[in-house]
Amino acid sequence: MYVIYKNMISKNFNFPMFIWAKKIFPWHRSLSGYGTYKTLEFLKSLNKELKLKFFKSGEKCFDWNIPKEWLIRDAFIQHESGKKFCEIKKNNLHIVQYSQPINLRLKLNDLKKKLFYLKRRPKSIPYVTSYYKKNWGFCLSYNQFKTLPKGNFKVFIDSELKNGKVHYGEIFLKGKSKKEILFSTYVCHPSMANNEVSGPVVSIALSKYLSKFSRKKLKYSYRFIFIPETIGAIAYINKNLKKLKKNVICGFNLSCVGDGRAYSIISSRLGNTLADKALAASLKDKKKVKIYSFLERGSDERQFCSPGVDLPFCGFSRSKYHEYPEYHTSDDNLNIISQKNLEESFDVLKNIIDVFEKDLHPKFRFICEPKMDKRNLYESLSKDRNYLNKSLRDRMDFLAYADGNHTFFDIVKKCNFNLSEGIFIYDLLKKNKLLI
Amino acid sequence: MYVIYKNMISKNFNFPMFIWAKKIFPWHRSLSGYGTYKTLEFLKSLNKELKLKFFKSGEKCFDWNIPKEWLIRDAFIQHESGKKFCEIKKNNLHIVQYSQPINLRLKLNDLKKKLFYLKRRPKSIPYVTSYYKKNWGFCLSYNQFKTLPKGNFKVFIDSELKNGKVHYGEIFLKGKSKKEILFSTYVCHPSMANNEVSGPVVSIALSKYLSKFSRKKLKYSYRFIFIPETIGAIAYINKNLKKLKKNVICGFNLSCVGDGRAYSIISSRLGNTLADKALAASLKDKKKVKIYSFLERGSDERQFCSPGVDLPFCGFSRSKYHEYPEYHTSDDNLNIISQKNLEESFDVLKNIIDVFEKDLHPKFRFICEPKMDKRNLYESLSKDRNYLNKSLRDRMDFLAYADGNHTFFDIVKKCNFNLSEGIFIYDLLKKNKLLI
Amino acid sequence: MYVIYKNMISKNFNFPMFIWAKKIFPWHRSLSGYGTYKTLEFLKSLNKELKLKFFKSGEKCFDWNIPKEWLIRDAFIQHESGKKFCEIKKNNLHIVQYSQPINLRLKLNDLKKKLFYLKRRPKSIPYVTSYYKKNWGFCLSYNQFKTLPKGNFKVFIDSELKNGKVHYGEIFLKGKSKKEILFSTYVCHPSMANNEVSGPVVSIALSKYLSKFSRKKLKYSYRFIFIPETIGAIAYINKNLKKLKKNVICGFNLSCVGDGRAYSIISSRLGNTLADKALAASLKDKKKVKIYSFLERGSDERQFCSPGVDLPFCGFSRSKYHEYPEYHTSDDNLNIISQKNLEESFDVLKNIIDVFEKDLHPKFRFICEPKMDKRNLYESLSKDRNYLNKSLRDRMDFLAYADGNHTFFDIVKKCNFNLSEGIFIYDLLKKNKLLI
Repeated sequence: MYVIYKNMISKNFNFPMFIWAKKIFPWHRSLSGYGTYKTLEFLKSLNKELKLKFFKSGEKCFDWNIPKEWLIRDAFIQHESGKKFCEIKKNNLHIVQYSQPINLRLKLNDLKKKLFYLKRRPKSIPYVTSYYKKNWGFCLSYNQFKTLPKGNFKVFIDSELKNGKVHYGEIFLKGKSKKEILFSTYVCHPSMANNEVSGPVVSIALSKYLSKFSRKKLKYSYRFIFIPETIGAIAYINKNLKKLKKNVICGFNLSCVGDGRAYSIISSRLGNTLADKALAASLKDKKKVKIYSFLERGSDERQFCSPGVDLPFCGFSRSKYHEYPEYHTSDDNLNIISQKNLEESFDVLKNIIDVFEKDLHPKFRFICEPKMDKRNLYESLSKDRNYLNKSLRDRMDFLAYADGNHTFFDIVKKCNFNLSEGIFIYDLLKKNKLLI
Repeated sequence: MYVIYKNMISKNFNFPMFIWAKKIFPWHRSLSGYGTYKTLEFLKSLNKELKLKFFKSGEKCFDWNIPKEWLIRDAFIQHESGKKFCEIKKNNLHIVQYSQPINLRLKLNDLKKKLFYLKRRPKSIPYVTSYYKKNWGFCLSYNQFKTLPKGNFKVFIDSELKNGKVHYGEIFLKGKSKKEILFSTYVCHPSMANNEVSGPVVSIALSKYLSKFSRKKLKYSYRFIFIPETIGAIAYINKNLKKLKKNVICGFNLSCVGDGRAYSIISSRLGNTLADKALAASLKDKKKVKIYSFLERGSDERQFCSPGVDLPFCGFSRSKYHEYPEYHTSDDNLNIISQKNLEESFDVLKNIIDVFEKDLHPKFRFICEPKMDKRNLYESLSKDRNYLNKSLRDRMDFLAYADGNHTFFDIVKKCNFNLSEGIFIYDLLKKNKLLI
Repeated sequence: MYVIYKNMISKNFNFPMFIWAKKIFPWHRSLSGYGTYKTLEFLKSLNKELKLKFFKSGEKCFDWNIPKEWLIRDAFIQHESGKKFCEIKKNNLHIVQYSQPINLRLKLNDLKKKLFYLKRRPKSIPYVTSYYKKNWGFCLSYNQFKTLPKGNFKVFIDSELKNGKVHYGEIFLKGKSKKEILFSTYVCHPSMANNEVSGPVVSIALSKYLSKFSRKKLKYSYRFIFIPETIGAIAYINKNLKKLKKNVICGFNLSCVGDGRAYSIISSRLGNTLADKALAASLKDKKKVKIYSFLERGSDERQFCSPGVDLPFCGFSRSKYHEYPEYHTSDDNLNIISQKNLEESFDVLKNIIDVFEKDLHPKFRFICEPKMDKRNLYESLSKDRNYLNKSLRDRMDFLAYADGNHTFFDIVKKCNFNLSEGIFIYDLLKKNKLLI
């Protein structure tokens, strides 16, 4: 099949996420087709555990059907003068995704009905799709649109819509417990950086990070899915509903995790699930944290939280989709993401993974306070105000709530720690055998 | 017995509530007696389902006893000059309700001990009662009081207090479910408009509105009681406690629902019952909504919410009793209520009834989001910001919470809809077979 | 053994707490030893029910061991000139508590390493302890420290650390129910008034107050423990854990209850226990009430609330330890406490006891509102605004929540009463047989 990529695995945890992003950015992803498959193969080259899977066109998934496979090879508009416009070889946003094949001559006025542009953002090509209704069209910047010459145009789309496959990728890392943490992201967006090469690269990095734990030592199981948005989530749920409902104790949708302007939580449907708590804990003390209600959802949390599925599942983004100006335009390019931002997003989720792998329900070993001075965790001489020492108190506070009922995320919230502080204190207490 | 009224039923839902109010306003209602009976018969003429019932004087009801029946025929004060004052033929508030018969001559100074007036509102006749202690007295405006001439007065009260009946009316509309919604209002107030001809006329209109549903199609049962305040509620509960506790899932006391200055909820004892939620939903987006705690109760919610009864029951008023200046005076007259206000109050409760009859627990038919474009509820072409379209999102939001656990009132609260919006969206989704 | 004190019991409830405080203030209490024993014997002289008990040195209690018994007879520093400093015969704070015996000659510079003072409070002797690590030292005011002459010093400590006993006192008043209210306070602080002669004197007064109820009439059982802080609580819990967990429904740590600057609650670990509610109710309407979270704990609530023990237990203080400037210095003397303040603290807890003894779950006798006028609790004549009369409404409000599910403390909170008001209303309703 298409292409196999050279292994780009880094040996330590400094995953070159931006380099990966740059690599896959130009490919023409969509719900299906060449670019999506190529992307999945690339991700597989980074983590061999990734399984390439697919749904078949026409397959019924609840209220939906899997669409046809779309193979796009070329598309442009050519003026009678010979001048070409909207060449997807220059930018694959120029075509309305899932456009039918066409070879037609049109006058400018007729052509205009099939053109999409953004007056509010005149230099940007918008991103337009028509997956489920036969259609075709081109997208271009408003400035370009205004320069279209009068006369006749040739419209050419070399595409194919066939009963085929909608591919996706899945990594399952089996731990001691069947209970799993689910990470979902999508591989259906062409040539946009924050939305959505950031999600796949952070996800694959997290999956690689988990290899630092030997498989036998993983406490929980972890699942990463790289799917087309909406239909992929619906089809995946359709296929795995029972298993998901049984095993998933926490899940996240990763989308737009590459820019640096904010940290966003899209709350679960009922709020206050383990996923909501985990993200809130991990984002404590970050600047510009936005917590959106489920009413402001927009990505696959729509499916994973829907009634009847109802997983403990949140969306995690930096700038949430509609909230950043470049969203769904050609300006969502590599300039608005960075290695630093990707690493920050990675760390937010890595800390959550660390908590699961350390102990979701830390439990204090003793009854009554421990004797801290004999472990050099407190001063033996009680003098002026040493009880006020914050780091000494923090240890006692962690223990006070480590009753086996509070999750790690509850504990840090009660104690007003951020997750890194909580992990630091946990490690110290664990090392001193104060936790079971 | 007394009188039978011509049927004034309107054929559509524009119930002439103000005309009804005007009709019954002048009658001398009290806990019992001619005016109360006449009022009940009039209400029965509007809805033949109304049953005339009674409690017998002396009957024990928990800590209370049913008082005697009070028949008042005439009452006035006459100065030795022949001039009459406090004639109940002019205004039946002139007499202390439940005054004993009397025919006496008194000097002005002795008479004054039996006169009631309001210095703070010098033109108004106050409303005074002494149901449970033998007494008599007259009420008049302070201005009138000041003009009383010196000398001797004849005091004449042609009343009768006998072991008789305390009448009330009851309408029970049996639906498929035994679970019922209870509406309680009272018929014991003489010649005051907001408090209380408004409650009975809105209640009877609601009972008539329900006839638009054929009886076999009614999902829930509905009960309307027209009782004397306090003793009526206590006696009614005494007689029906077990049944009420078993069946009533939501109830409202209607009092002072004719003026236009506010919308008031008197919360149930524990708050947050279905009745509280229903009223809050129905009043969302109204101007001047006041939510009073149960500590600020004053009408029959006192009984229906009392420990041991504890129904999910709220008071609904426009201006709540003590909160409007004309309360319990002769200024509470037809000028402070209007057809428009009565209709607004009617609509608040009609919308609640509609929710019960549509579906208290709407349930989405599918798992995962439905495919809205194939039902023309969404655009097939995904372009700039159409996901932000509020009405499209509202439909999805309703479905997201229509999980069978949230009541309709919970759903609209979660989604930030007012009840009319919620009903509109429900109807659209139901028509499109998206709800079970 | 040491000394027996003359009985100082007052015949009424005006307990001379300040006089008691003054009596025990000078004694050299510590975790163990003469002064502590003497204090316990004095308390026993006030309430013969007090049992003198002890833990043995070396006994294991969870993560701790009972320390040695410390007998201190004399200690001072003497300059070669003959001048003495830090004489414990003048102030027993001059010695680091649990100092080992020593008889040594030192130069000033070497001596300085063993001296403690407070620059921020130059006139005060600080309170320093080293219970668990062999050590010795002296404390003095910074002003005194600065005047120490150059030259050689004799350091003399006539103390003894032996395997012996750590004494404590316990009063158990058995009521009809095994369910008990626990009061804990400590007897390990030398010569400081607010912290801690106030706690023992208020506790002993409360235990004496309970004798006004004949033992057969006590509804609940009451336990008072007079222990050394921290190790005493841990050892006591170690010995009694099962019983405590089974029986204690409410408990308080009394510390720093003699000054008049504030009222403080140190919340229980999970908040909202009966103890939290009881204190909040009893402190309603007091000026300067501070509610600290469990994170701001510092006394034996640390142990009684710890995971695995987890009693419904709060700390009660006036100015909480670290919050008042004289804390843990020689300025915490009899000048900062007073009989009035002690009585105020006493009353806070006495009111709580009264609630337990009256009825923790008051229950209204009837269904629906009672007929108040026949009991002269309401006016029979209903006229202008008498329903607004607060005291009439208060009675009804109390009854409305006296459903057997709400505790007395819940009821007063719901009704917005302070505890004295609640008790007054309760008594009135009880007298009128409106409560079961």
